[in-house]
Amino acid sequence: MNEIVDTIAIIGVGLIGGSIGMTAKARSLARRVIGIGSNRRKLHRAKELAAVDIYTTDLLDGVAEADLIFICTPVLAVLPTIKAIAPALKEGAIVTDVGGTKFEITKAADAALPEGRSFVGGHPMIGLQDGEVEAAIPYLFLKSTYIITPTGSTDVRALDSLVNFAEAIGSQAVLMSPEEHDRSAAIVGHLPHILSASILRLAEEEQSDNIFRLAEESFRDMAKGAVSPPGTWVDICLSNKEEIISAMKRFENILAEVRKAIEEGDTKEIEHLFSEARELGSEWIRKHTGNE
Amino acid sequence: MNEIVDTIAIIGVGLIGGSIGMTAKARSLARRVIGIGSNRRKLHRAKELAAVDIYTTDLLDGVAEADLIFICTPVLAVLPTIKAIAPALKEGAIVTDVGGTKFEITKAADAALPEGRSFVGGHPMIGLQDGEVEAAIPYLFLKSTYIITPTGSTDVRALDSLVNFAEAIGSQAVLMSPEEHDRSAAIVGHLPHILSASILRLAEEEQSDNIFRLAEESFRDMAKGAVSPPGTWVDICLSNKEEIISAMKRFENILAEVRKAIEEGDTKEIEHLFSEARELGSEWIRKHTGNE
Repeated sequence: MNEIVDTIAIIGVGLIGGSIGMTAKARSLARRVIGIGSNRRKLHRAKELAAVDIYTTDLLDGVAEADLIFICTPVLAVLPTIKAIAPALKEGAIVTDVGGTKFEITKAADAALPEGRSFVGGHPMIGLQDGEVEAAIPYLFLKSTYIITPTGSTDVRALDSLVNFAEAIGSQAVLMSPEEHDRSAAIVGHLPHILSASILRLAEEEQSDNIFRLAEESFRDMAKGAVSPPGTWVDICLSNKEEIISAMKRFENILAEVRKAIEEGDTKEIEHLFSEARELGSEWIRKHTGNE
Repeated sequence: MNEIVDTIAIIGVGLIGGSIGMTAKARSLARRVIGIGSNRRKLHRAKELAAVDIYTTDLLDGVAEADLIFICTPVLAVLPTIKAIAPALKEGAIVTDVGGTKFEITKAADAALPEGRSFVGGHPMIGLQDGEVEAAIPYLFLKSTYIITPTGSTDVRALDSLVNFAEAIGSQAVLMSPEEHDRSAAIVGHLPHILSASILRLAEEEQSDNIFRLAEESFRDMAKGAVSPPGTWVDICLSNKEEIISAMKRFENILAEVRKAIEEGDTKEIEHLFSEARELGSEWIRKHTGNE
């Protein structure tokens, strides 16, 4: 594989940032990978694990020579980081992030960068994993979807570079607008976690030791879904507020309709709901396992 | 293992009924297992698979000599079946079922049976599986929970027999009232499926080819949960209507509170929800995998 860029900088070398670095190095996609963070011990560990070539705790120094900068911080820290590094970026530098919400960041990023420096939003779909660099692996992105969210003002060269990089690490690059990303993510990414957390709260309110005896596999799966870092969810709820609220309202309307059908003993409508769900669920699982 | 009863009759020899028969025969829990159903071909298959010793399509003939009768029909057919077999049951016969809702059946069953014949409700927790006798296995109940729902008027001897049988097939027998069963089942058994079906409907309404690109594992699990027989769900929704409606209303209230917290950007409350959920979910998974 040929080098795609000369120097990559990764701000936040945890599971995702570390895996980007490892993959870039393992596939020789860059001459040099610079790790940037606030914790020297963790950065040193990243170097030991071959996730970065060199590291620094100086943000501006770290990005100064980079051609492609990955911001792998929590979502709410992405925009402040873009603003902080803006003055240090060299001509032609491309900045991207890996956050789970895209509209707010993308909207503000262009304005935050000086002429000749570009931002392209990204969201590698590797699950809502959170972890240190010890969990990083050089094949994390293999066969995954890497969503890239250009806008009308995105620099085409910068977009091409990120698409090339995403495919070079083994992902399938999928382009969509930041709006479509956030709207879809609210429904199939964020709402399920909110439902998981809410059903656990309801079960807890029962104050019954026996209740979990009745749990079916579907409840088990929902409980599993709730076991993810609370901080990530605060960030997501705040940075995708509009779409999440809208998805929740529409979901609440559907739920009220279903409840009405059950209250009225409307056999036809109840059967329709579950038949439709069985069909949609099967279709989705088929597509998913087929890697389409 | 000693015989627990002389003759067992199983009405509806599919996955669950067939597995009860196979287990009873494999462990010599009865001298004789009679299969009862409407489809002679399927009954013959059950005999070939050693799920029953003999079979009949005549309901009254089939139960006449049975000491323990398992009704393994769909939930809504249980009560009509009890009423139909009542006149043919011998003195001391014990009738039980394996349905996923218990209150309505239990309430009506006592009145439907003549003096000297007893009903004890049961619900083996082996997941919402539906299938033919080909899917039956003689170790389906191993390490599972077998919920038994006595009432104030349940015959103690009959209760003992069913508890003994449940434990003899490898289950842990857990007693609870039909009310507690149905209330708990509504929350951790039935609501998750309603939520799965509802979120698939919401996703479908988006009419977007790209939406599933954003699906996280939690959505995948919910889609999986929706893939179960619609007919079963109609029965469950109708036979556990009150508790399901009540659980849905409480869930809708929790959801509205969560939405309000997100709308107001109430970081503390959002973090509280997800922290609590993480704790509850982890605890539940720990307990579950520990088989407590």
